[in-house]
Amino acid sequence: MASTTPHTTPAPLTRASVEAAHTLIKPYIHRTPILTNTTLNNLASTPQAPEALKGTQWEGHEPAKPKVRLFFKCENLQRIGAFKVRGAFHAVLRLVEERGIDEVRKKGVVTHSSGNHAQALALAARTLSIPAHIVMPNISTPSKIAGTQAQGAIVHFSGSTSQEREAIVAAVVEQTGATLIPPYDHPNIILGQGTMGLETQTEVEELLAEKPELGIPGKSGLDALMAPCGGGGMLSGNAVALQPTPIRVFGAEPSFQGGDDARRGVESGTRITTVKTLTIADGLRTPLGDHTWKVISDNEYVQGLYAVTEQNIKDAMKLVLERMKCFVEPSAVVGLATILYNEDFRNMAEREAGEEGWNIGVVFSGGNTTIEAITNIFAHVPEEQAERHEGVVASDGRRVAENVAG
Amino acid sequence: MASTTPHTTPAPLTRASVEAAHTLIKPYIHRTPILTNTTLNNLASTPQAPEALKGTQWEGHEPAKPKVRLFFKCENLQRIGAFKVRGAFHAVLRLVEERGIDEVRKKGVVTHSSGNHAQALALAARTLSIPAHIVMPNISTPSKIAGTQAQGAIVHFSGSTSQEREAIVAAVVEQTGATLIPPYDHPNIILGQGTMGLETQTEVEELLAEKPELGIPGKSGLDALMAPCGGGGMLSGNAVALQPTPIRVFGAEPSFQGGDDARRGVESGTRITTVKTLTIADGLRTPLGDHTWKVISDNEYVQGLYAVTEQNIKDAMKLVLERMKCFVEPSAVVGLATILYNEDFRNMAEREAGEEGWNIGVVFSGGNTTIEAITNIFAHVPEEQAERHEGVVASDGRRVAENVAG
Repeated sequence: MASTTPHTTPAPLTRASVEAAHTLIKPYIHRTPILTNTTLNNLASTPQAPEALKGTQWEGHEPAKPKVRLFFKCENLQRIGAFKVRGAFHAVLRLVEERGIDEVRKKGVVTHSSGNHAQALALAARTLSIPAHIVMPNISTPSKIAGTQAQGAIVHFSGSTSQEREAIVAAVVEQTGATLIPPYDHPNIILGQGTMGLETQTEVEELLAEKPELGIPGKSGLDALMAPCGGGGMLSGNAVALQPTPIRVFGAEPSFQGGDDARRGVESGTRITTVKTLTIADGLRTPLGDHTWKVISDNEYVQGLYAVTEQNIKDAMKLVLERMKCFVEPSAVVGLATILYNEDFRNMAEREAGEEGWNIGVVFSGGNTTIEAITNIFAHVPEEQAERHEGVVASDGRRVAENVAG
Repeated sequence: MASTTPHTTPAPLTRASVEAAHTLIKPYIHRTPILTNTTLNNLASTPQAPEALKGTQWEGHEPAKPKVRLFFKCENLQRIGAFKVRGAFHAVLRLVEERGIDEVRKKGVVTHSSGNHAQALALAARTLSIPAHIVMPNISTPSKIAGTQAQGAIVHFSGSTSQEREAIVAAVVEQTGATLIPPYDHPNIILGQGTMGLETQTEVEELLAEKPELGIPGKSGLDALMAPCGGGGMLSGNAVALQPTPIRVFGAEPSFQGGDDARRGVESGTRITTVKTLTIADGLRTPLGDHTWKVISDNEYVQGLYAVTEQNIKDAMKLVLERMKCFVEPSAVVGLATILYNEDFRNMAEREAGEEGWNIGVVFSGGNTTIEAITNIFAHVPEEQAERHEGVVASDGRRVAENVAG
């Protein structure tokens, strides 16, 4: 089918390709900042209260005591509010290199998405004066449709099923000759997202050279990187970027309604191709694709996948908003939630990092949510859980004495 | 009364004193970042829709067309999440200089506050191993009490009236010999807060030297600074810091229930000493004091005071959270709300800045709010207004095409 033809000759999935991608897209993206936070370092380096493990698979186990320093890569401050511009710019610029700008301007690009990838592709296309066709479900919220149109994209409506969506994409391709830029499962998208890994590695090294006290004593860079995993474009890109370095790469997913498809697939040895979850981490509801599976299921690239509950995500989000003063979407904090609340990860980190401890890069993938959406998410926390949460943060031995600290 | 005795010989209110304060407190505070945002620059530089002026004092007037570039000083990322640590550290360090550390450690410091100043003083005192007594109304929320205690402060409870409060402060002073560190109306507090003005001036100059495209073409620094005004410690501090420079200083207040006491006082020539407003900008509910009035009512120091509605504050807050991805408290955005929505300010800026335009520093004073508080604030927006707001942002000619841009 036309719409699934790879749009360009793919570059090999190597760090060198990620570096080439970075050179290509750098003028169009923000070099987003790294933030650190003493409160979150302290929380992550303090054992959970035994009561916090009640009702979980770790009930009765001794809580782990990892020692970590966290470095948050703030892609919520990226253009369009999410990392997706990296892959979109890279895919479009590579297409232009291969076909020539005139050809691409004549035929345009197309994708199906109602989320961050649609905005990202629309921005990349507008920047290069290329027509962008975005296929969106006709039930999309008016503000998302308006937002995509405000980027100058041509919106096509489809039904909500993937068949209906692909039929409209195919029709657009047939009418216009536009090239499909898929949201995650393409080498050029993966390589584009991986540029974040390069930046995180370098920026943390620069930061530690200037302020060594922000990290584990005696260490000049990262020991690990933790990234959320949905379709896996960003996680696999980071893994490719960091594969030849000693930095270990971990992925984090929501467990709700089987949203941890990558973890389960890797555990069983078979890719899971269908996921139906309504997790609040709505950017992570998609299964892995062919390309991303290949990277993520390879232990040389990704050293572990972990899952967290909806409550873990809410707790982490509350900390990031209220303590770090960073506005993030739920998908963005799944990595931090893993570091704070997943005892499998915490035990592994304690074991592997030892007395010394680890410097961990943590990807905040995006910040595209609304006050209304946050209100809805937190309105559903039952009173009792809300109380417990206050307790966990304020009085279980992981006390938070200071709101913001760098 | 003991509790209102000035605690040290005050330094003169000059830029040199602010510079000395900066040297003193620098090791204890964060040099908070300056953020810029293309979307907000574009919104602020686009005339409001005539419909947006309906029902205001500017109905029927032609909307102003100022040209501005905004530089946000992010004191929400300051220690304890607000600028208040600047004044608190300065006052305590000056007290130590004057009385000696042993004396101050023996007797301690005291204040009455349930807000950011309490946390700030507690942190400053804890850092220097000085006992801190904080008098809080016994109706304070448990989390605020716990937060202050977690800073190591000794909490004393009082009734809610200022008489009850002052009686407890006086009792603490009598029992312990502690020195009162007032929340805003003292030269050392004013000078401490003013350090923010020095940083903002310098940081914007550094930023423009590196990236001139972020500012008005051809300009190497700020033309103006806009700061929120409650008790006026921070506004007057900034005004003192910038008085010998060509940078103009403006203050912003909430108009709700007479919250614009500084503006009304200056207009009438007489300080307003009592304010009873329940504005959502809860950091700005206090009247000016003697010292802050003297600076703020002097046109050589503060060139204008402006007020905004509760809806203006909500609209600005929504933009800062959702578009800038910055977590701020309502008081923090009153300056931005003025720049976006107050036609008196906008007309003045258009007139004074001319064709060329202005680089304006905008103080985000703090970020100490909660998801719960935000939910409550926005739950009270009637459906119709919420719709109108969406319209103003998305489709009235001040379109927002991109979520985040630096």
